[in-house]
Amino acid sequence: MGDRVWAAESGRGLSMRELRTVAVLGLGLLGGSVGLGAARAFGRVRRVGYSHRAGTRRRALEAGVVDEVRGTAAAAAGGADLVILASPMGTFPELMAEIRPAVGARAVVTDVGSTKVLPVRWAGKYLRGAEYVGSHPMAGSEQRGLEFARADLFEGRACIVTPTGQNRREAVRFVRRFWEALGMRVQEMGAAEHDRVLARISHLPHVLAAALVRSSALEEMLLCGKGFLDTTRIASGPVSVWRDILLANAGNTAGAIGRLTGELERMRRALERGDEKTVVRLLEEARAKRGELVARKLARHELPE
Amino acid sequence: MGDRVWAAESGRGLSMRELRTVAVLGLGLLGGSVGLGAARAFGRVRRVGYSHRAGTRRRALEAGVVDEVRGTAAAAAGGADLVILASPMGTFPELMAEIRPAVGARAVVTDVGSTKVLPVRWAGKYLRGAEYVGSHPMAGSEQRGLEFARADLFEGRACIVTPTGQNRREAVRFVRRFWEALGMRVQEMGAAEHDRVLARISHLPHVLAAALVRSSALEEMLLCGKGFLDTTRIASGPVSVWRDILLANAGNTAGAIGRLTGELERMRRALERGDEKTVVRLLEEARAKRGELVARKLARHELPE
Repeated sequence: MGDRVWAAESGRGLSMRELRTVAVLGLGLLGGSVGLGAARAFGRVRRVGYSHRAGTRRRALEAGVVDEVRGTAAAAAGGADLVILASPMGTFPELMAEIRPAVGARAVVTDVGSTKVLPVRWAGKYLRGAEYVGSHPMAGSEQRGLEFARADLFEGRACIVTPTGQNRREAVRFVRRFWEALGMRVQEMGAAEHDRVLARISHLPHVLAAALVRSSALEEMLLCGKGFLDTTRIASGPVSVWRDILLANAGNTAGAIGRLTGELERMRRALERGDEKTVVRLLEEARAKRGELVARKLARHELPE
Repeated sequence: MGDRVWAAESGRGLSMRELRTVAVLGLGLLGGSVGLGAARAFGRVRRVGYSHRAGTRRRALEAGVVDEVRGTAAAAAGGADLVILASPMGTFPELMAEIRPAVGARAVVTDVGSTKVLPVRWAGKYLRGAEYVGSHPMAGSEQRGLEFARADLFEGRACIVTPTGQNRREAVRFVRRFWEALGMRVQEMGAAEHDRVLARISHLPHVLAAALVRSSALEEMLLCGKGFLDTTRIASGPVSVWRDILLANAGNTAGAIGRLTGELERMRRALERGDEKTVVRLLEEARAKRGELVARKLARHELPE
């Protein structure tokens, strides 16, 4: 590959001349949206899909999410230039082992998993010799299933790509540009750093929303307003997805919980001793910091409104 | 007063025949919206306003938020059938002492404060002999100032009224129906219970949003998505308002923080020992409980969408 395979075209689309066939393993919200997004971004790329459910394979074909489906992951991965693992993370080891013999010498494998240390470790073990570059396209989490898939799911969202020292630079660029073609802002980061940061900004808020709901009685919560509903919204996300994420990133998430309870304790102690100065300082620093966050995200056109 | 003063009219409006003059002390978001809402709900009620700022008094008149303004709180309260304290809670003791001599024998005093134990205690001390019924209309908190006031601010929102054993039943009904006429769902509760419940569903989420923002670096938060922004939104609320609320309800809020950190610790320990069963149970219970909350609020038409 290399830079010569990339050519800027009109609009945001970059033609990936060497991307002729993309295999999407797992046809839920994310896999389905990859299929639809790829059709929109690349006119002539062939999209091959795999799901372990025959019904899902049929519906994916009918909905035009992919051009063809295969009954095994290995059959779908064979001959693809880019293989994307889009099934639940818990299935990755088995899936990697199964597709390994079918992955072509010039192919690149990536995934859409929400944590990255484990997939990178698994790839080293089960995809040995194949080129694997971890991806975390940050989109969708409350809805599940093919029926919610849409071509613009990734549009304007962040994607973190986690190369290792073993990756060929061209392979990393290939994966980056694929997500960029789907409208994502791509950022590179080590897998360990990814998991540490995500524990704080994604996995911790989920734990927190659940804990907040658990610590109030239903009758009390019925009095709540929009603020409480917003704060707890992510507690309604799918349990199996979050179970996998939290267990895959248990150490970092536990550490993030510890940092947060430390902050909560500071406020609790200040309230118990009626320490107005500290209460004000804690609130003001948080308000200023969130204000800066919103301003920076607005400047980067990363806020929805 | 009594039931005979109420007569159902067309629409949701209830005529309060004995409500001829309402005094609004404090002309910010809430006070201004009370003025605008009262004009819409009661055609012929005279609305008298007070603000300690001359500029605010002038703007309130120009905007039609009230029919007239007075330069002192006592002058505004004199002759009113209903007096509403809508200034920051910290000003209540002084305001109550100042208006006490001017409050008529048949008048009822209420307020819009976000905690209720302290206002009730203050009323016992500074409004002695006058009829005071505490109110907490739960609307607005992120925006401040007269310019955001609107007639429908209270529409469809909850209002908690906190009578004591000393209140005449008619006075409580008078206050209830005032808020109902502004479109609110009114619920009665003791002041102590109000503060305990609000600590959990309102004051704790604020503390939490602030702690979450404080426990991550800005550069890390820049990667965040909509979930994190929703969860932390209320950390952008006005510091002086939240300082007053948290300090006025310090004991309950500290207790609620303790309950929450207990829940967080359960999850942290489960993650540290890789206890999948407990992780799943904690997530599932929270998800089911929030689902029930949303279903109950939908059934009661209490959700915006």
